[in-house]
Amino acid sequence: MFYIIGLGLCDEQDITIRGLQAVKKSSRVYLEAYTSILMVQKEKLIYSNDCARKEAFYEKPLILADRDLVETQSDEILSNANKEDVSLLVVGDPFGATTHTDILLRARALNIPTQVIHNASIMNAVGASGLQLYNFGQTVSLVFFTETWKPDSFYDRIKENIDLGLHTLVLLDIKVKEQRDAKYMNHPRYMSIPLAVSQLLEVESMRQTGILSPDTTLAVALSRVGGGDEHQRIVAGTLSELASHPAEAFGEPLHSLVIVGKRLHHLEVEYAEAFAVDKENWKAVARNNYGCALD
Amino acid sequence: MFYIIGLGLCDEQDITIRGLQAVKKSSRVYLEAYTSILMVQKEKLIYSNDCARKEAFYEKPLILADRDLVETQSDEILSNANKEDVSLLVVGDPFGATTHTDILLRARALNIPTQVIHNASIMNAVGASGLQLYNFGQTVSLVFFTETWKPDSFYDRIKENIDLGLHTLVLLDIKVKEQRDAKYMNHPRYMSIPLAVSQLLEVESMRQTGILSPDTTLAVALSRVGGGDEHQRIVAGTLSELASHPAEAFGEPLHSLVIVGKRLHHLEVEYAEAFAVDKENWKAVARNNYGCALD
Repeated sequence: MFYIIGLGLCDEQDITIRGLQAVKKSSRVYLEAYTSILMVQKEKLIYSNDCARKEAFYEKPLILADRDLVETQSDEILSNANKEDVSLLVVGDPFGATTHTDILLRARALNIPTQVIHNASIMNAVGASGLQLYNFGQTVSLVFFTETWKPDSFYDRIKENIDLGLHTLVLLDIKVKEQRDAKYMNHPRYMSIPLAVSQLLEVESMRQTGILSPDTTLAVALSRVGGGDEHQRIVAGTLSELASHPAEAFGEPLHSLVIVGKRLHHLEVEYAEAFAVDKENWKAVARNNYGCALD
Repeated sequence: MFYIIGLGLCDEQDITIRGLQAVKKSSRVYLEAYTSILMVQKEKLIYSNDCARKEAFYEKPLILADRDLVETQSDEILSNANKEDVSLLVVGDPFGATTHTDILLRARALNIPTQVIHNASIMNAVGASGLQLYNFGQTVSLVFFTETWKPDSFYDRIKENIDLGLHTLVLLDIKVKEQRDAKYMNHPRYMSIPLAVSQLLEVESMRQTGILSPDTTLAVALSRVGGGDEHQRIVAGTLSELASHPAEAFGEPLHSLVIVGKRLHHLEVEYAEAFAVDKENWKAVARNNYGCALD
């Protein structure tokens, strides 16, 4: 059996009992390298340490799988999985990335039985912001802009959502450098909330459709959702408030950002108020620009 | 600390390690009654049995909490939670229902610290259908129609999604009867996939916008996602194929249905083909009515 197991959003405590049992009976356990970066404190972002920590918890040796192994050499991971149990551990839920659909299709072609073990991902845990999941439209991704490459099709998707009054979950890019040589690895680079807001406003200033405005568009930033007060950070405010908020206040990566839509309900405002940079301004914008009837 | 803990989608094996640890240190553990119905085989839908099974697993006595207790008498659940640990177990992820936002707001008002422990819910596990999460628009709910009450605002939401080419997750109603007296409980009633399809087509026949068609609209039905071959059922086909498929082929409740949007990608077609009632027709409709370039 080939298991693909979601690890959830914070650390090794977020695996399910079903997932842990699959790990324990597997003869080989792969950990997607992309994943391991997310699951430890920033100062421990060295693979060997991370692996030691996880190995102790899972009671299994772990094989690090970089994107190339998962995407183009998946037969190595799937080798012999028709005779023994093999697990691939990934951050969040396995269906967060198309890569995992590919490896499951490949397993199917090789007549290898598969089982997916689900977990929380930002696609549902975003509810922790207090914004109701049925008020969300399509999710978009925001990649790092360069001087010459500023792909902005996400803007059209946000506009479609905003025109319907819906919230938009924006997933922020992370650049994971591959292993430089046998011994060294570069640190990853992940998009911060202030950078994401600045890129959003840069596209707005080019497109000028008025869907995003520094002082009257509300947004909520999330990281390490579900990790308890020790890890989780949720920050709510206008785009300009988030842009000028200290980067460290947004916690450890990965970060996500929700652009709030006009169907905003007063109970959503009330719940998210606890996370607001400036509670009075949060309520004022919700009342004046979103038409929320607040006390 | 007041913990609200997601149990995931299938059975007691789907709780996370973090969730199980919170349960074990709690002095009172509530199980939302709505939840317990979903987590056992149909023939075991008697609360006492269910509780015995869970109690053994969690090593804790469980207190059944009906909707009324969670919604209107939440202070009883929260009692003393500023001094000891109290847990409330719910199916899926805690932010799937507004009820849980309410109890968290109430805890906040009482100065009780809270922690939410996330898990998979149908909102992200729907990816198991092979349909990509970023191609989904807003989620809708479908309630049981009666002769005189056929609320159809969900149709407008589906149309908004379809006009953008997006998939729609449709959550199907369940009627959980409350305890009749101290000893007896009625069996719950849950909406089957064929009934859901028939209600959708009934509204289409009234509205006549042409967004849904028995033979050229594709859909995917899901139940017990992530439970392995023993529990999980995913069935794909046209609306008419799903309407005439035997109800038991759709597995145990809760059921969900995805209406496929026109942005359908050929890899989504290929992945979901494994679940199709009629593989050739699945591909033919994808090719002819959705414009998918298939081999």
